[in-house]
This record gives sequence, structure tokens and C-alpha cells, in this order.
Amino acid sequence: MSGNKICRRVGERTFEYSGRPSVTGAGSVAGEMEGQGPQAEWFDVVLKDDRMGQETWEKAESKMFQTAVEYAMRDAGISRRDADAILCGDLLNQLMASSFMARNLAIPFLGIYGACSTMTESMLLGGTLVDGGYCRTVITGASSHFSTAERQFRMPLEHGNQRALSAQWTATAAGALVISSEHDSHIRLTHATIGRVVDPGIMDSNCMGAAMAPAAFHTIRNHLKDLGRQPLDYDLILTGDLGNIGKRILVDFSETGSKLPYLREVYDDCGAMMYDASRQDVHSGGSGCGCSGSIIAGRICKEMREGKIKRAMLVSTGALMSTISSQQGESIPGIAHAVTVEYV
Amino acid sequence: MSGNKICRRVGERTFEYSGRPSVTGAGSVAGEMEGQGPQAEWFDVVLKDDRMGQETWEKAESKMFQTAVEYAMRDAGISRRDADAILCGDLLNQLMASSFMARNLAIPFLGIYGACSTMTESMLLGGTLVDGGYCRTVITGASSHFSTAERQFRMPLEHGNQRALSAQWTATAAGALVISSEHDSHIRLTHATIGRVVDPGIMDSNCMGAAMAPAAFHTIRNHLKDLGRQPLDYDLILTGDLGNIGKRILVDFSETGSKLPYLREVYDDCGAMMYDASRQDVHSGGSGCGCSGSIIAGRICKEMREGKIKRAMLVSTGALMSTISSQQGESIPGIAHAVTVEYV
Repeated sequence: MSGNKICRRVGERTFEYSGRPSVTGAGSVAGEMEGQGPQAEWFDVVLKDDRMGQETWEKAESKMFQTAVEYAMRDAGISRRDADAILCGDLLNQLMASSFMARNLAIPFLGIYGACSTMTESMLLGGTLVDGGYCRTVITGASSHFSTAERQFRMPLEHGNQRALSAQWTATAAGALVISSEHDSHIRLTHATIGRVVDPGIMDSNCMGAAMAPAAFHTIRNHLKDLGRQPLDYDLILTGDLGNIGKRILVDFSETGSKLPYLREVYDDCGAMMYDASRQDVHSGGSGCGCSGSIIAGRICKEMREGKIKRAMLVSTGALMSTISSQQGESIPGIAHAVTVEYV
Repeated sequence: MSGNKICRRVGERTFEYSGRPSVTGAGSVAGEMEGQGPQAEWFDVVLKDDRMGQETWEKAESKMFQTAVEYAMRDAGISRRDADAILCGDLLNQLMASSFMARNLAIPFLGIYGACSTMTESMLLGGTLVDGGYCRTVITGASSHFSTAERQFRMPLEHGNQRALSAQWTATAAGALVISSEHDSHIRLTHATIGRVVDPGIMDSNCMGAAMAPAAFHTIRNHLKDLGRQPLDYDLILTGDLGNIGKRILVDFSETGSKLPYLREVYDDCGAMMYDASRQDVHSGGSGCGCSGSIIAGRICKEMREGKIKRAMLVSTGALMSTISSQQGESIPGIAHAVTVEYV
């Protein structure tokens, strides 16, 4: 029965996509404020109205996510009938944005929750389904919306409360990728590392970057070690939403004892990239799983297609807390999943 | 690059686990009330105190889930270092029970959310990771707790409100499986079908069985059709938590036009099995992702090991709603994922 056993493990924590599944389509949508930031030119759609004509913010988020998926399908030249599965998630309780989108699209649906690590979690899993031959084509993605997250996790929107300087701004943005073995593209998935939960004991939910940075560090280090690589073997190592503070912490970690030599030269963070700190009052940068979702499906995919980035490690980062866990005195555990993508 | 392309698709919606990954360990924990029902003898642990000595119900659920995982690991003869990943989920906002368990166990963690379909979603995905060689050993599982679900989704526990006769009782229970290519066992995963969202337009959140039955029907029918099988080719077709009403609806569907001939003879539902309707006042039966989680990891695995069940189709069923989606006037979409397991 087990005659055709295959091992795709590389080192302790990493595996290989031996068939190098292709990213054949990408779609990205961003909100009004994100459309005024430095990433604006890379998004397929910048919303003129973050409410998208919907009655509620939650329905707007679902529609925004669906728009990103539809752009990704169009980009790949597929219809929804060609997709064997959609793997995706968001920050809403019970994945409301994803679930109702998946209902509308009627594509077989696997809900994923990794807080803001969802984008690379969905790519990691979707990649194995395609590479292993379980699916021919899948869609992966993640979405977040300032107005849904703010009122679910923090304060009523009408409250207009003052925000801590270490706080990040949940990006209104969604990104989706089509991963397929049916068509070739220049962007291929090569390796991935599933992250483990790392909890540095941060209690302040306005300091998520610090809570996630150790998990990002562990995953990046494990991924490099397993592949026998150094940071400079990459053109880009990109974390999800550590923001300005978390990014500095990760660079500090990397330089202490040269654990990740020269990381700084190839490293960036979607949270730090999303807004222009000099013009946009977002304190420590962007966050939300749509932050890395839209930048990966927007700028990164487009730059890779042009061959400007040959090898990138994408490491979306999540803070696995809820309002209840914080109210019950729990600290904020972090997680990060790494996927290496290459231009071929 | 794509030289080693493998296709494991069978029919339109189904795929095969060609390496037949083994279920090498199972662990199940159930609450006080579930321990007074007809499934009691099959659980590894029946709690004497649903609070498990914890300060809060949420922490109790996390500890209960961890206990199920620890039993599964012990049953498989592995330590947490042998597990390449844990794929699991629960009903709490942001998967609080799973996340904090994964933190304590320090096993690479992939959070899954499929409402009460989570058990077979985690098996389906975990099975591909092992079968495809991406992981050697994974843990899959699902958990729910009456006291956390009730206060999150419905009413404060102290309220003691009257419940509709069509309502189901969220089971306090957790189940976990170890799936591995490193060791053989008698229980093997052979095929799976990813379900799509089916929304029959049910608006009553006290009538979840009716909301989920159409999704279960679609997934069972697709799975059978793709494999060229009839219901009687199975010893057992088991849905997750349709409960007494949903179970009757599914049987009605199957008999209308003989769409699933003789389903009734091999069919049961974990929600209908969990409690004794004559003694336990749970109205339409059990629900919650721990309901099918604990019965699959409890009774089904044990009966399969003894060879009493040779071939079972496991179909956990989920209602993809949130309190917000219901408040915003949305109907309740259903989903169901099927995994066939065989005794070899």
C-alpha cells in the first residue's frame, strides 16, 4: 500500500515543492487610504469607497475579497469552475468575509485561520495540494478591513479614540493568488516552512510587532538553515506586518551575534511598506492579513514577473490573540509561515 | 521543472491518497454530560469537571483539547517532537483553544476553520501533507465546549434561557488523530472530497441541521459519484452534527428519486449519536466540531481497529455563520468535507 512513498522534507522544518507549482494569477484590492500610500500603483483596484456600496463593513470586506479573487482568476485566465479549491481566511469571527465570498463563488472551500499569517499559510497549503496532485488549480488569499477589525477587536468606529504610538493600522486590503499545475508561469513555489507558535510574553495588544517578531525570526532562521542558505541568497525576505517597531526588533535580533548576517540588506516588512509615515498618521505601520496579502499579490508578483526579484522568502506573521484571551490575562503568541518563491 | 507532475484527482471533486497514510493514534475527551450518553465507553477521558480546574471556560477548552492531543500522541507512541505539524481548529473567535494549545505544545501549527466541519477538514489537509511527503507525521483535530460556545454565540450561561426544540446542544468534547507515513496501522485514509458552500437560505440559527443537510448531501453524492460507488459500498457514512432534524432531512433527500439508494442502512450522524434523547434534554441532538471530532477519534477509530468497520466515509458538517452575519440578515451557509477511511 505504501509503495509510492515520497519524502519532500528538507532539514528539520522545511519541505520542497518538487513540481514547482506556478503562480498563474494574482489579484489585489486596497482601500482609500492604502491607495494614497507608496504601494498604490501596484494594486489592481484602489477603492473609491471602502464601503463598496454595501450595507455593512463586513459585507464590504467580503465583496472586496471577492473582487481580489475575481481579478486573480481573470489574470490566470480561468473561471471559477477551473478552481478545485479556494483556501483563504480573514480576521472576522468565524471567517465571515471568506465564508460568504466562498458561498457566492461556489468553489470548494477550505477555511484557514492564522491571524495575519493567513496569506502565507494559504499559499503553503494550497501549494502542497497542487504540487502533490490533489488539486490542479487552487486559489489562495487573505483579507482585512480597517473598519471591521477596529470595531471587532478594539473600539466602536464612532469612538474616535486616541491610538498608542506602538499601535498599527489594520489595512483595508485583500490579495489572492491562483496556484496551478495546469499552466506555467515565471513565478514558482519552491520551499516552505510551517511556523510554530512563539510567545515572547507581550501583554500589550497595542504592541503586536513585538509579539510577532520572535516567531518571524525563528521561521526565517529555520527556513534558511534547512536550505543551507544565508539571507543574501535572497533578493527579498518579506515579513507580513511587524510594522516599524517589529521590523526594528527583527533586525536587532538578526544582528545580535550575526544570527542572520546582512538580513537588513534584503529585508522589508509589508506593514512598514504600506503607508508613508511622513504623510499618513498610522503610527507603527500597517497590519491585518490583507496587508501582506495585497502586497504579495500586488507588488511582489508584478516585480517577480518582470524578473526584478528572482528569489523571495514570504513570511506573513500573525498574532494569535482574541479579545477574550487578552481579557483573560493571556499574553500574545506569534506565528509565521515561510514560503520561498522564485522567478524561473 | 514540472517533470514529476502527479495527478491524484478522481472524478470531478475527489482525490486519492495514493500512499494510504495511516491513522496511528487517536485521542478523545468528552465532558460530564457527554460522558453520561451512549458514546461514553468509547472516550479516552470523560471529564469529572468541565472546567478542568481552570479559571475560565475558554482555558478549560484549550486544556481539554490538549489532553486529547496528548492521548493521541501517546496512543501513536510519539512525542511532540515527532510531529511535523498540528492542523486543528475550534469554534472560539480567532481559534483561541487551538492557538494556546499549539503554543503549549510548540508543534508547528496550521489553524483551520470550517465551523463544525473542522474535523474532516483537518484530516483531509493533514492527510495530503503526509501522503505527499511534505510531513512525516501530523496531528489533526477539533474541539468544542458547551460553555464557551453558548456564551460566545448565544446567551450568557447564567441566563438559563429556554431553547428551541430544533436547537442542538454544543458538545463539550475534543478529538485528535495522528496521521503518519512513518508507521503503519490498520486505519488508512484513501480518498477525500473538499466541500463547497451550499446555502439553502435558512435564517433560523436554532435550526442548524437544516442549514447543513444540503451541503452534506452534495458532498456525499459527489464523493460516491467520483468513486463510482453506492452508499452500500460503505459500512458507515457518518455526518458531523446534523442532529435529529438534519439527519431526517438528509435521509429524505437521499430517498427522493433514490439519489442515494439505501443510504439509511449505513448512515448515522454524530450529533444524533452523542446523547440519549430519552434521558438527556438536548432537543435536536449534539453539535460543535468536537462532536464529530470525539466520535471519530473515539468510537470510529476503535471499531475500525477491531475490524468492525471496514470502510467509512466521514463527513463533518459546518454552518458558516457568525453572530454578526445573522444580525446583518444573512442566511446560514453550510459546508461538508468527506474523507474515506478503510481498515486494511
